[in-house]
Amino acid sequence: MERTKKTIIVFSGDLDRALAAFIIANGAAAMGDEVTMFFTFWGLNILRKPEKVPVRKGFLEALFGRMMPRGAGKLGLSRMNFGGLGTAMMKHVMKKKCIASLPELIATAREQGVKLVACTMSMDVMGIREEELIDGLEFAGVATYLGEADEANVNLFI
Amino acid sequence: MERTKKTIIVFSGDLDRALAAFIIANGAAAMGDEVTMFFTFWGLNILRKPEKVPVRKGFLEALFGRMMPRGAGKLGLSRMNFGGLGTAMMKHVMKKKCIASLPELIATAREQGVKLVACTMSMDVMGIREEELIDGLEFAGVATYLGEADEANVNLFI
Amino acid sequence: MERTKKTIIVFSGDLDRALAAFIIANGAAAMGDEVTMFFTFWGLNILRKPEKVPVRKGFLEALFGRMMPRGAGKLGLSRMNFGGLGTAMMKHVMKKKCIASLPELIATAREQGVKLVACTMSMDVMGIREEELIDGLEFAGVATYLGEADEANVNLFI
Repeated sequence: MERTKKTIIVFSGDLDRALAAFIIANGAAAMGDEVTMFFTFWGLNILRKPEKVPVRKGFLEALFGRMMPRGAGKLGLSRMNFGGLGTAMMKHVMKKKCIASLPELIATAREQGVKLVACTMSMDVMGIREEELIDGLEFAGVATYLGEADEANVNLFI
Repeated sequence: MERTKKTIIVFSGDLDRALAAFIIANGAAAMGDEVTMFFTFWGLNILRKPEKVPVRKGFLEALFGRMMPRGAGKLGLSRMNFGGLGTAMMKHVMKKKCIASLPELIATAREQGVKLVACTMSMDVMGIREEELIDGLEFAGVATYLGEADEANVNLFI
Repeated sequence: MERTKKTIIVFSGDLDRALAAFIIANGAAAMGDEVTMFFTFWGLNILRKPEKVPVRKGFLEALFGRMMPRGAGKLGLSRMNFGGLGTAMMKHVMKKKCIASLPELIATAREQGVKLVACTMSMDVMGIREEELIDGLEFAGVATYLGEADEANVNLFI
């Protein structure tokens, strides 16, 4: 089978949509495809380090940063979140059924060489610095995305 | 015109997004395309039978099942739902203007040979059994999706 | 570089998703691509004129019209809207950082020849008339979308 390319824009920062994105990405990578994921807007939250990173920010940037979830372990479901209870239930069920968690899926994606790209313009808007995101990312803008999408045969927006 | 292939991942269980997915799928099928729809996460709710089906479930599975809408007739809008009032208004307007309802669109999709696939991993997570879903579905995972998407010229995530 | 084609279905009427759609569309147009955006359901609100346009409507249509945001300047974020406060903060930050606003992005899209198409069926369902939408649009249905998508190499649903 020939090696093809896939791109996924991860716009959403919801746990369920992030799971879907990584399951598709890892599946494609396992089948030998080249996969690039572009994290933009709320999707950037998936890539945040769980700990507070000391960086200089303006007031609004700091406020945005505090209000948004810090990393894959903190995301909630897009529906039935119920103040975190639904999300906890879902995680519990997934663990019991031996389905990989989001942090595990991210680790697998990195091992498989899925390219994780953070959108620099979104980082600027949201006041998120490189040091606040997990290691091993690339940083790029819409032109890079379009270049990759032109070479890919499947392009999704999640 | 040559026969091409389309795939749609139906992740959302919102009435409005489900309508959009089936309108695109039916349009493509009517133009002679091969169409495959993959229902995953909340999208599985679109395929649930309206009646309660007696199956053995764990406590959390049963709870999830009770809290999620049972079938195409029970879905709400993603916006302006207003506790069901907005959804009822939208359905009323669609009927008055002779626009097909979601159950009608699903019936047309099946008549036209649109392939409806339920994601087995999502079914496992949500505790949904085959017997609880409408007849005539196929059951598969992400590898099947990727195989179909590789052959398609339009792939959407809704 | 060869000129390719892109299509984007803009289903969402959220400010953040609308921004993402126009940033991708304008990026592609700047790189010489032909871009068509299809506005459907809540996405139609992005194209509404900011002022009230006197047209004859039924009761429900008028009610829907009043409850939905009138144009690109009135949209809210999909998250952290906080009754408009989060949206105002985001706009303030974007302005301070010299990032184009949604109305500016729409103007650029039109200057660059991005084709903006309003979905006629959605207009019918939502009771939105041509006169209520900004000038320079095309009006079409799902068959037109599918025809364009068949010729495009990137097709997104936002």
